[in-house]
Amino acid sequence: MGEFGLIKRLTEDIKPENGSTEKGVGDDCAVLNYGGPHRVLVTTDLLMEGVHFDLQYVPLRHLGYKSVIVNLSDIYAMNGTPRQITVSLALSKRFSVEDIEELYAGMRMACEHHHVDLIGGDTTSSMTGLAISITAIGEARPEDIVYRNGAKPTDLVCVSGNLGAAYMGLQLLEREKSVYYQQLSEAGEKKDSVQFQPDFSGREYLLERQLKPEARRDIIEVLAKAGIRPTSMMDISDGLSSELMHICTQSHTGCRIYEERIPLDYQTAVMAEELNMNVTTCAMNGGEDYELLFTIPLTDNEKVEKLEDVKVIGYITEESLGCALICRDGSEFALKAQGWNPLKSEK
Amino acid sequence: MGEFGLIKRLTEDIKPENGSTEKGVGDDCAVLNYGGPHRVLVTTDLLMEGVHFDLQYVPLRHLGYKSVIVNLSDIYAMNGTPRQITVSLALSKRFSVEDIEELYAGMRMACEHHHVDLIGGDTTSSMTGLAISITAIGEARPEDIVYRNGAKPTDLVCVSGNLGAAYMGLQLLEREKSVYYQQLSEAGEKKDSVQFQPDFSGREYLLERQLKPEARRDIIEVLAKAGIRPTSMMDISDGLSSELMHICTQSHTGCRIYEERIPLDYQTAVMAEELNMNVTTCAMNGGEDYELLFTIPLTDNEKVEKLEDVKVIGYITEESLGCALICRDGSEFALKAQGWNPLKSEK
Repeated sequence: MGEFGLIKRLTEDIKPENGSTEKGVGDDCAVLNYGGPHRVLVTTDLLMEGVHFDLQYVPLRHLGYKSVIVNLSDIYAMNGTPRQITVSLALSKRFSVEDIEELYAGMRMACEHHHVDLIGGDTTSSMTGLAISITAIGEARPEDIVYRNGAKPTDLVCVSGNLGAAYMGLQLLEREKSVYYQQLSEAGEKKDSVQFQPDFSGREYLLERQLKPEARRDIIEVLAKAGIRPTSMMDISDGLSSELMHICTQSHTGCRIYEERIPLDYQTAVMAEELNMNVTTCAMNGGEDYELLFTIPLTDNEKVEKLEDVKVIGYITEESLGCALICRDGSEFALKAQGWNPLKSEK
Repeated sequence: MGEFGLIKRLTEDIKPENGSTEKGVGDDCAVLNYGGPHRVLVTTDLLMEGVHFDLQYVPLRHLGYKSVIVNLSDIYAMNGTPRQITVSLALSKRFSVEDIEELYAGMRMACEHHHVDLIGGDTTSSMTGLAISITAIGEARPEDIVYRNGAKPTDLVCVSGNLGAAYMGLQLLEREKSVYYQQLSEAGEKKDSVQFQPDFSGREYLLERQLKPEARRDIIEVLAKAGIRPTSMMDISDGLSSELMHICTQSHTGCRIYEERIPLDYQTAVMAEELNMNVTTCAMNGGEDYELLFTIPLTDNEKVEKLEDVKVIGYITEESLGCALICRDGSEFALKAQGWNPLKSEK
């Protein structure tokens, strides 16, 4: 079962004692009812240096921005609006005042962009690496909240943007890092003379998707404007395959996804080719896209086809049919939750 | 200024954009207004192994309990009622399933004791030590909320329980740990034969205050029952001296505190004597007591004197008179914020 399965078991059977706890563990956010016209949404993430980010190539400003965005993405994934965040940091001695200013500059930029208030937190020292813990709080009218468990057979499965680019960005960064270390190693005692210039030309989009992802507030707004209310939704942080299985498990359904319909960016395809990787596998299992995965009633098909940056990739089936990917040649493969995401590793 | 002062500067000038943000950074909790009859209170703490706790002598069950309690204490310190927590953990590979069950058992015990729901969190791996990040959410009627900034000249300064015991408990644990290491070192190659038995006899109370502190919900209830509404309040996590200065700075007042009135447990006094430490200094500057410090109108003097486990230790003055401790011999010392608390180190 493993430690992460254990924690799931230890927390999922908790019965709420308080009337204000409407939904606890198990979705992108907890949902609280404090009696106002809106429900209060709460989500939290803990990011650890060496596990979720590598400061050798992640600029602190980008890290600050991304660490806020990954939390806001969970609020949007409930069809909510983020309002506040708390930020707790554990800092080791090697951080300078300028470093911390950079980190906060990134966090504040994300807050400003999404009209979110930083309302508190905790700051402490760390004997080891940097730890960033952010809790985001948001709101939604009760009738607007979209859970993972509302998908119905015949619903259409949709995703925003394109998939796999963040994962390819990470591969690129890791490759350039290893080239650098190889040059250092080959230089031996002359390693001070190594002037390494990583080669990212033409790959800027992949880097941006990895280093500075965006939470898809725009998609939430576009759907509301088009009069489309998703029946289920979540953000794609662990990879499409894993997230589809969450929706299907919680909705007691199956699904059919068409390989040819999975949205890919040109750079993602080129990079996968270069690394000799299967681009569909990258799109299905690469994490950190922070796109939205949602299902809509079949009757909304015409409405959704008019939307930019949203693509129908398949449909929901009865549970007994399982979850499958239909490849270009017509063959079917059962989906596996081999999601890869350093931000949610092994969860 | 240092890194922690920098973060204070970076966060305290943030102007909230959202109407739902009633109070951001600067008190025990943020206060949110989501339109219901109650305000929503939010507080968060990040605890790092090696900084806030030493797993060589802190049992995981106690650590779980304490890590929840320190957050609930902040909710009570606003005169609120805690309702929910999120728990994020970063676990290194050395933790076994049993370890994690112990940690959760402690956290659940604290939740049950305080009728709080565990509503979510994040679990990840850690390359280094254990990190625990908890966010607590609670509620209070707007008219009941007590901030740090409401103290007025002539108000009485009160504390619950007694002070310095948790700090003495830590000194005791650290002493026994160093005795153990000394025995190991002296044993040399025969170190496997060392059978160390720490000597805690007669000091159980100090250990309990350090390892399993309690949040003073009972005091909040007793005050409400007695019809006493504090004019200002906070919990004593960094030491009395430091917290008094927070209240006085934010209330624009001074204070006079009487050394002879500071509540001490007998074991605290004995342990201080044994360690050749000044017990008043331990009570003023030792952290982690999690008692409540509050001010009440002078007219409530008779009411408060009838309460068990609450003591009047001084009074609030005009700001120009500063903050001072009046010693047994009548001499006055200006208070300094040399608070000591591994949970809030260097903040």
